[in-house]
Amino acid sequence: MEEVKRLGRELKYKGVLVNIYADTMELPDGKTVQWDFIHHDGAAAVVPVQDDGRILMVRQYRNALDRATLEIPAGKVDQAGESKKECARRELEEETGYRCENLEYLISLNTTVALCDELIEIYVAPNLIPSRQHLDADEYVDVEAWELDDLCRMIYAGELRDSKTVAAILAYKAKYRM
Amino acid sequence: MEEVKRLGRELKYKGVLVNIYADTMELPDGKTVQWDFIHHDGAAAVVPVQDDGRILMVRQYRNALDRATLEIPAGKVDQAGESKKECARRELEEETGYRCENLEYLISLNTTVALCDELIEIYVAPNLIPSRQHLDADEYVDVEAWELDDLCRMIYAGELRDSKTVAAILAYKAKYRM
Repeated sequence: MEEVKRLGRELKYKGVLVNIYADTMELPDGKTVQWDFIHHDGAAAVVPVQDDGRILMVRQYRNALDRATLEIPAGKVDQAGESKKECARRELEEETGYRCENLEYLISLNTTVALCDELIEIYVAPNLIPSRQHLDADEYVDVEAWELDDLCRMIYAGELRDSKTVAAILAYKAKYRM
Repeated sequence: MEEVKRLGRELKYKGVLVNIYADTMELPDGKTVQWDFIHHDGAAAVVPVQDDGRILMVRQYRNALDRATLEIPAGKVDQAGESKKECARRELEEETGYRCENLEYLISLNTTVALCDELIEIYVAPNLIPSRQHLDADEYVDVEAWELDDLCRMIYAGELRDSKTVAAILAYKAKYRM
């Protein structure tokens, strides 16, 4: 593959969750162009599986889409060097009110490779232990238990579209439930 | 679900592919907070399937990750009101040098629901017809044919991480090849 080189990176805007940069790139033909770059600290997500096989999902309002979405529990890593697995365990308890002692690694995702360095690690959470939901101050989520087959039907109907959720549900089904 | 309301949206930075906004949100408890919003025009992607069952993948340098990634062919819709399906057909031909007369709808993805309104429609492209690759001026990609099982192994090993590619490959396998 011919080589594309980054000559510079300039901070353009500091957002709440992300920072936006302009990258100056040198193409193999010698031309320089500007490409976007968005820095994200990374996140973790969980497929929480009840003993009856249903999946715990969260429904929450998303301003980017101007509607509520159905997603697996997920969240950004803490500033304090938290590992992705610790983040997954914490977000599971905070958002659903269940703990899990033996998270199993499933897959990793770069959500938007064309723009952003966000990396999400996704875990399966079996053997859920009732605990207490404790949401962030600006977090309002409803918890719902869903049949795996219904989630898959919604994926193929184009109704369930959150990329981490689609990838995680399909990966979980193929690995554990086929 | 309690109601979160958007009070305002202010443009903060115009990038090359995306624009960044600050949304002012009113939470159910009456407090106002600022959340990020990134506007993207939308995209389409394709799972191109050769007659021998192998999948055509593209490898290209991604400045956001500072490395080359292996992805299904994809691209942003044209400004001129192009449909997602037309975009998929065009990107397939531009990036791989193959045409397809009968794209089949697979799934849709919102890549990053916490931040961005990007929606990708993904199609399966069987019965590929040799044509001519014609890349954009700043596009340098290598085309590679991969066995489906090898791609799945890389997904579960955490080596293949592009979210649209992971979701599309798993959705294609479960629907067509199980």
